[in-house]
Amino acid sequence: MATPHIKSLESDYPWITPSIPLITSAPMRLISTAPLAIAVSRAVGLGFLGSGTDVSTLPDLLSECTASFSSSPIPNTPPEILPIGVGFICWGASLSDAIKAIAESRLKPAAVWLFAPERIENLVTWTTSIREATNNLTKIWIQIGTVNDTNYLAQHCKPDVFVIQGSDAGGHGLNQSSSIITLLPECSDALSQSGFAHIPLIAAGGIMDARGAAAAIMLGASGICMGTRFLASFEAELSKGYQDAVLSASDGGVTTNRTSVYDRIRGTPGWPSSYGGRGVLNDTFWDSEKGLDDEQNKRLYAEASQKGDLGWGIKGIGGRMCTYAGTGVGLVREVKGAEEIVKEVREGMRKLLKIE
Amino acid sequence: MATPHIKSLESDYPWITPSIPLITSAPMRLISTAPLAIAVSRAVGLGFLGSGTDVSTLPDLLSECTASFSSSPIPNTPPEILPIGVGFICWGASLSDAIKAIAESRLKPAAVWLFAPERIENLVTWTTSIREATNNLTKIWIQIGTVNDTNYLAQHCKPDVFVIQGSDAGGHGLNQSSSIITLLPECSDALSQSGFAHIPLIAAGGIMDARGAAAAIMLGASGICMGTRFLASFEAELSKGYQDAVLSASDGGVTTNRTSVYDRIRGTPGWPSSYGGRGVLNDTFWDSEKGLDDEQNKRLYAEASQKGDLGWGIKGIGGRMCTYAGTGVGLVREVKGAEEIVKEVREGMRKLLKIE
Repeated sequence: MATPHIKSLESDYPWITPSIPLITSAPMRLISTAPLAIAVSRAVGLGFLGSGTDVSTLPDLLSECTASFSSSPIPNTPPEILPIGVGFICWGASLSDAIKAIAESRLKPAAVWLFAPERIENLVTWTTSIREATNNLTKIWIQIGTVNDTNYLAQHCKPDVFVIQGSDAGGHGLNQSSSIITLLPECSDALSQSGFAHIPLIAAGGIMDARGAAAAIMLGASGICMGTRFLASFEAELSKGYQDAVLSASDGGVTTNRTSVYDRIRGTPGWPSSYGGRGVLNDTFWDSEKGLDDEQNKRLYAEASQKGDLGWGIKGIGGRMCTYAGTGVGLVREVKGAEEIVKEVREGMRKLLKIE
Repeated sequence: MATPHIKSLESDYPWITPSIPLITSAPMRLISTAPLAIAVSRAVGLGFLGSGTDVSTLPDLLSECTASFSSSPIPNTPPEILPIGVGFICWGASLSDAIKAIAESRLKPAAVWLFAPERIENLVTWTTSIREATNNLTKIWIQIGTVNDTNYLAQHCKPDVFVIQGSDAGGHGLNQSSSIITLLPECSDALSQSGFAHIPLIAAGGIMDARGAAAAIMLGASGICMGTRFLASFEAELSKGYQDAVLSASDGGVTTNRTSVYDRIRGTPGWPSSYGGRGVLNDTFWDSEKGLDDEQNKRLYAEASQKGDLGWGIKGIGGRMCTYAGTGVGLVREVKGAEEIVKEVREGMRKLLKIE
């Protein structure tokens, strides 16, 4: 018998019903463009565009996706829906530009994924505005990292989905947090107690393959999100140097860490102070730890960026360029098509969970 | 069909065969004494005594356990085996005293659990000496926190079990590590690739209930360990103030952290620099963050310790006393008997995993 949160997924995204537990791709800024999002959604996952802090490219990204799914729709997608989500980094993205892009899109994105507002209360405006602009067609996903925020946002935004991000996640997340092992069940219990048991939880942070996906479902998730795994997909928009650095890293608990040094050195300021980015540690980080000042570090970073793929070093040695990735980076060993990744994880997960 | 690691468990601990995946209790220093270890083993888990850094109490602890299981053995326990394990904190414990206590014990502990050596190579001597002293009757469990250490120790110690400790764990662990979500599968893959697929993995760190336990099994573990959950058992040896502080804490990703401040302030020095203790953050931590020097902090700590249970504050507010606990502390809501905890987690886990 379907639980309340599975029923929510089935009703909100009817075309994904056969592929629940749902597999989604993270809206990685600059990296998750149309090819990755389309491929994930074609595999009847839900692919997200990483609109990030700069909404200016969103109209083109939405057009590209709309063209694809208009000419070849996924069965059971409602005619006005684009089976693609859009992720916003709320402290930096313009809400009015976001609304405009979505309102002008012929097909409405199935979901928006809201992350990292300057102040948590701002998400109320985001939620209300997007619901109004799309007549509730675009569902509201909110990413959280604490039980406290989950409780607040359930009450004030009543999101359609919570993305529960644990400490293992690559890229930006809370500097201090638990992994999904404890965060997901505690959020799940809190929501049940406050009458929000119907909100589906998507687990994010450290899920790299069928094992992590099945584990997340045991914890109470009804779907999972992968970011780092898709860095090694043909469709991800990233340099070969970055991809090679991901493939060559292992033992991510000690070779990655959450830090603000890459934001400072490569010039992506603006993140609220409680957030840092988890990446493979390289000379930019180590030199900073040894006391190199940021100005000199920036100069060396600029030099490295002139070297193209070599800016990430050879097999991760000697690199300086930002290599955001999660602690599971050692489980990423091969570049594959995103559709193949989704299908492989889904089949393995269903087998482990003894589904069907 | 049983996997190689399940076969290892069945052959090394025949009495636990019906209760695999195995549930164990962590060898918490001072807290895991005979009552807790006996209760967990009576529920056909494997209870561990927390011998810690001070082996002087071990002979008495072993006698107490031996008396219990001699008069009322668990079916299928070999006659010379005590169905109880012993945990050592290797940087501080005397190997010769440990060997002496085990050699003089009429029944040999089923396992020793080795943790935190000053140098990783020291575990080779620990392993060899204990195997020699017990004619291999006492199995060697080694706790690790990185893939690299797992590879080294598989090669050099060939332990009978690896305990894979993730970042969510309470008490001492590596300052930098991933959670079991990524650490466990990566260690599992590494061991398979190097011909050690038969070594069972026990997951530790953040497992509080059936959901976490089932998740760990999906990740590749053949058993799990709980520490924080047993802090709220009748059998754990800890103050009511400590237990109440555990029960009242929630949202452990932000309300606990790994730190060395409690070691410094309460006077438990000696840990290798890569280790810190995760505990519920209270005024000892916050005052230190605000710049209070250690000497003054120690004085306030000593004052707090004079207050008995009130030294932990009221509902976690105003406390100063060390409250080691994992990020899952918010999932611990009720004091129960340890046998009941084991049975509840086992039944729930087996149901989630669709076993039988």
